[in-house]
Amino acid sequence: MSGLLRDYSPEALARFEREAAERYEAYKAKGLALNMARGKPSPEQLDLSDPLFNLTRNETGVKSSDGWDCRNYGVPFGLEETRSLFGEIMGVGKENVIVCGCSSLNIMYDYVSQAMTHGIAGGEPWLFCRDRKMIALVPGYDRHFKVAEHFGFDFVCVPMTAEGPDMDQLEAAVKDPAVKGMFCVPKYSNPDGVTFSAETVRRLAAMETGAKDFRVIWDMAYTVHDLYDETDELANVFEVAKEYGTEDRFIAVASTSKITFAGAGLSALATSDANIAEIKKRMAVQIIGHDKINQLKHAYFYRNLDDIKAQMRRHAELLRPKFETVQKILDEELTGLGVAQWSKPKGGYFISLDVTTGSAKYVETLCKDCGVVLTPVGATWPLGKDPEDKNIRLAPSYPSVEEIALAAEIVAVAVKLAACRALREGQTG
Amino acid sequence: MSGLLRDYSPEALARFEREAAERYEAYKAKGLALNMARGKPSPEQLDLSDPLFNLTRNETGVKSSDGWDCRNYGVPFGLEETRSLFGEIMGVGKENVIVCGCSSLNIMYDYVSQAMTHGIAGGEPWLFCRDRKMIALVPGYDRHFKVAEHFGFDFVCVPMTAEGPDMDQLEAAVKDPAVKGMFCVPKYSNPDGVTFSAETVRRLAAMETGAKDFRVIWDMAYTVHDLYDETDELANVFEVAKEYGTEDRFIAVASTSKITFAGAGLSALATSDANIAEIKKRMAVQIIGHDKINQLKHAYFYRNLDDIKAQMRRHAELLRPKFETVQKILDEELTGLGVAQWSKPKGGYFISLDVTTGSAKYVETLCKDCGVVLTPVGATWPLGKDPEDKNIRLAPSYPSVEEIALAAEIVAVAVKLAACRALREGQTG
Repeated sequence: MSGLLRDYSPEALARFEREAAERYEAYKAKGLALNMARGKPSPEQLDLSDPLFNLTRNETGVKSSDGWDCRNYGVPFGLEETRSLFGEIMGVGKENVIVCGCSSLNIMYDYVSQAMTHGIAGGEPWLFCRDRKMIALVPGYDRHFKVAEHFGFDFVCVPMTAEGPDMDQLEAAVKDPAVKGMFCVPKYSNPDGVTFSAETVRRLAAMETGAKDFRVIWDMAYTVHDLYDETDELANVFEVAKEYGTEDRFIAVASTSKITFAGAGLSALATSDANIAEIKKRMAVQIIGHDKINQLKHAYFYRNLDDIKAQMRRHAELLRPKFETVQKILDEELTGLGVAQWSKPKGGYFISLDVTTGSAKYVETLCKDCGVVLTPVGATWPLGKDPEDKNIRLAPSYPSVEEIALAAEIVAVAVKLAACRALREGQTG
Repeated sequence: MSGLLRDYSPEALARFEREAAERYEAYKAKGLALNMARGKPSPEQLDLSDPLFNLTRNETGVKSSDGWDCRNYGVPFGLEETRSLFGEIMGVGKENVIVCGCSSLNIMYDYVSQAMTHGIAGGEPWLFCRDRKMIALVPGYDRHFKVAEHFGFDFVCVPMTAEGPDMDQLEAAVKDPAVKGMFCVPKYSNPDGVTFSAETVRRLAAMETGAKDFRVIWDMAYTVHDLYDETDELANVFEVAKEYGTEDRFIAVASTSKITFAGAGLSALATSDANIAEIKKRMAVQIIGHDKINQLKHAYFYRNLDDIKAQMRRHAELLRPKFETVQKILDEELTGLGVAQWSKPKGGYFISLDVTTGSAKYVETLCKDCGVVLTPVGATWPLGKDPEDKNIRLAPSYPSVEEIALAAEIVAVAVKLAACRALREGQTG
């Protein structure tokens, strides 16, 4: 007998299911309340940035490096020193950076909103393109999908591979002039943890698009968020794009939400000269300025990329045991059964778990009834609908290692029970 | 001979002009650099809020009153305590408040942008209304005009009176269904310092509008910004509107930009249940959340409206001498000549100066050549064009009393020189 669950004899399968059900009931009796739904930093990670909270004006002064009183109006596009810092993080010069408030989602939303009402680079407002479409990389990040959905885009789904998006499919899809853009997380993607290969980055820069105003929102959410010393490397998209004259195609965003405080960090965008000029023209009308005291404090603490990297190693020390606990438990419980596959990322905030087709929602329900809240199944697909009902995003950052271990065991048992049900019902995946 | 300059004999006028010119040259020789262009708080005003800068987590803790760790994600619409505080400032309950980042302009822009792409209350997106128009109260605030201009609105100008907008003209103008809304500063208006009378507020609430989705952006920029103990009183627009069933008409905004830090404050919007629900639906897609540590710090410092009022009395002590200096000098220099009129506000940040028709730009140039920068003439009108070229906005908050005195003298002398030129050229105002 092979180890695959589908090869089990009926008796063996019944025994396997009974044992899983017994364990499940035992977990359920504990009355747990565990949450693996969102990529939230843990309190211990936030404690790492408390010195930022405690900085006073005696330490930082009130003036930026070029003499602005940060308590007053002015400098709407960000202090020079914070623009430099994000420039280092994002791989561009400070003149190609705008520093904003504490939400990079807000930057992405505003960019699409600007395209809707004013068009991009002289093009027609996207609102007038009645059959506008957005590429959806699947599985992907629900908040990206929701921005596109909010602005009335239809979706063209392109699957993720171990190298990034399936570029053959993507290159074919973007030939349609109604396809206006795509969101992506090119390093440690949400939820897969995939980093786009150099070849993928090159093809994204080189590809022909039907829409002249096609835009890639390059969400560098996890760009310095490595779990190990050996890290994935992402090619500098702006350098590659220059070779093809497509640097206007890319709007990069990043934030310190998972570096300092998720609830009080900084965000920034980086893009080409032409895009910067177009965005500044809008922002000069839109906003008086972003919080400069918070910028000053961040710049005081993080003088350069080395300081950021040192901080990220401290985060990794807290996060690594959690990720490794999940990996170890899934491995012990599920390897060889042929009922699940999961990602083993070297950074980011998620583990992507694929279960038996048609079973993800059932796993979610089993977990919920046991007090374990997962990211809603379907969230990794546009409109919240996973057509195969098989992808589950696990977010192990927030709970303690002990809680994560318990939650992962419950997930594993739920995956087993769901697989048994599927086999009984003939729904093999 | 009366005191009016236009009644002066040619010889008297020539002598008057010569004296003014001599004084002007003497000022010019000083090589000054004074700025009365924008309503910026002075460094001394900002110092009042330095305790906010210096607050540490040991003092405030990290948790909101309802237990949220303010360093982490969550609470996208504002902490309960900061919503309560703004509710008191704006005259609504906390459930009708959303607290945002540090720019109320951003809130106004985003609201209009939402109307452009999604419409309001089920109406068609405003972008599809090709001949859309906005009421412009004149003189008014340039940044309001610029938001409307950015989104392609034409303007219907309605003059301000001592009671607020000329309501007869306004009621006639809003019958046009293409007129979608207006911005206003109902208390201590920018630049006039006018507070809308109770009758004006009632008529704004009661008036029939051609557009069902007509909206009034109620910019409460100076709502607690009194210079004297005896203050102007603004009627509560939401209470009045309830009587007419028009509470959805009003979108109120406010900020702490001129209470705490202009460069790192809080902003908020207040509106009806229906509008709040519509805006939250958008914001849930747009943003992860605003800076909660800054909210926590503000709430720690300002527990209620009384605390805010105490702080505003300290601001008034710094601002009053500056306003009174300008008033005294304009009075001494210009009263009785019939060449200028100016506002005498009891609060806010501006003095509105009307000079001889066709002379404002010349006054601006004379001042500039003497090192005194004024708000660009025309800024108080849509598209930056004052058709009578007569309104000048003076912003006395930032410079010291000594600098303000000097600047006001230079303005007065420039007004005299410009009036003489106008009389010589037969351009009497």
